[in-house]
Amino acid sequence: MLKTFEQLKNRQLQGKRHRIVAVCANDDATRGALQLAEELADVSYVNAATPEEAAARAVEMIRNGEGDILMKGLIGTDQLLRAVLNKETGLLPQGRIMTHLAMAQIPNYHKMLFFTDAAVIPYPTHEQRIQQVRYATDVCHALGIDEPRIALIHCAEHGGKQFPFVDGYAEIRSMAEKGEFGRCIVDGPMDVKCACSRKALEAKGMQSPINGEADVLIFPDIEAGNTFYKTLTLCTPTQTAGLLFGPQCPVIVPSRGDTVEGKFNSILFALASL
Amino acid sequence: MLKTFEQLKNRQLQGKRHRIVAVCANDDATRGALQLAEELADVSYVNAATPEEAAARAVEMIRNGEGDILMKGLIGTDQLLRAVLNKETGLLPQGRIMTHLAMAQIPNYHKMLFFTDAAVIPYPTHEQRIQQVRYATDVCHALGIDEPRIALIHCAEHGGKQFPFVDGYAEIRSMAEKGEFGRCIVDGPMDVKCACSRKALEAKGMQSPINGEADVLIFPDIEAGNTFYKTLTLCTPTQTAGLLFGPQCPVIVPSRGDTVEGKFNSILFALASL
Repeated sequence: MLKTFEQLKNRQLQGKRHRIVAVCANDDATRGALQLAEELADVSYVNAATPEEAAARAVEMIRNGEGDILMKGLIGTDQLLRAVLNKETGLLPQGRIMTHLAMAQIPNYHKMLFFTDAAVIPYPTHEQRIQQVRYATDVCHALGIDEPRIALIHCAEHGGKQFPFVDGYAEIRSMAEKGEFGRCIVDGPMDVKCACSRKALEAKGMQSPINGEADVLIFPDIEAGNTFYKTLTLCTPTQTAGLLFGPQCPVIVPSRGDTVEGKFNSILFALASL
Repeated sequence: MLKTFEQLKNRQLQGKRHRIVAVCANDDATRGALQLAEELADVSYVNAATPEEAAARAVEMIRNGEGDILMKGLIGTDQLLRAVLNKETGLLPQGRIMTHLAMAQIPNYHKMLFFTDAAVIPYPTHEQRIQQVRYATDVCHALGIDEPRIALIHCAEHGGKQFPFVDGYAEIRSMAEKGEFGRCIVDGPMDVKCACSRKALEAKGMQSPINGEADVLIFPDIEAGNTFYKTLTLCTPTQTAGLLFGPQCPVIVPSRGDTVEGKFNSILFALASL
């Protein structure tokens, strides 16, 4: 069972070396994380006269097959994403959505917990949510979680006319049952606690195949996803990693203020997802 | 500085005795909490042939001035609220909104943290949000927090066209500056971490009069508020209490599965808010 970033690193030491393209890696934390990563991966450092040029050059390298992962250093996320999302020269195939997927090593939880979306899509449409489930399932499979348990989060165990998106949850469950995401267990609506605690589930008299052991939380909106992320890292010594999925390659866009360790965790996550 | 429920109890021991009207208090946890409360308050136990009749009778007692606090036992929240919200015989004055306000004793935070709304209003309108700020400020004042620091939560420090409610935050800040809520400091948009950590605020290069020491978090929607509540109690030994404000008297509607301690905390909160 995947419990720690250390495990992820050890697995990666035995895996294939991949290539990271680092854009404007001119701050200490990004440099430090990339130095740690050199044990596992090859790193290209891309700089240019302006951040825009650096971003364009890095994206071009990925398109040319010269790199497998894109990582942001001292450049605005918007600046990097403009190059990634450029319709002609960018990295997002038509019809794909780009969404943020994070993973957390939470002291009180018995395994790694993945969650989406804390950073990019404000209010996912039904189609976007389906894609989020698909990306999360694929990543879990890549990380050796054969049958991820995926909870569709909502503040209650039922919908209501103010929560039209909850109707879509039934369709996602049914798609999962038909095997459209590969092997996985999908259930919801349920709240964060019922997703991650059998005791909480029982206290509500609820039954769920997730059984309080979720691997993935799909949040209804970015306010909830972001609140989860920030509350965990505010109140517990949780370690996290986050990536953008959807583009041709995983894109690492660390937050201002992420530590060397946090940025290195995201590199580990990106390497393992390939 | 208010840090613990224990402090709240000690204050209450020296305060005025109030009267609790308990509806269908037939479960062990509610009974247990009310027994603890008898040191501080007088309790009327209301039962009847049906939960609906008990709710109606309890609401009538409040209207007749025979009680100061309403508390739910083994009766559906919906059943109790139908009686509370009844336009002719209920307890919600016209033009008032009813909203959930909770308080949390979080091990890693240096004082009590209040937050709203984790349970009742799905997507607060601008008017509802103003009322939430007002109730929270009033409650903080009642609990001896002279100048509460109130953070208007959002996933980022700026708005955007997908987040129209963030525009309203500026007006709420300006109302606060004009003294419309009494003494308080209001700022936002900001995320949970910037609201509660000076370090996080600095890492983002942000400045705020709240200075990472929020007393109150006003959440943009129920998904975020509920996620905050559930994440805290899932991942940390946080103690919480919750009340409905807006009706003539505070209404305690504990969750299924709340412990004796949790229900007693809510009683303490209700008593202190009067």
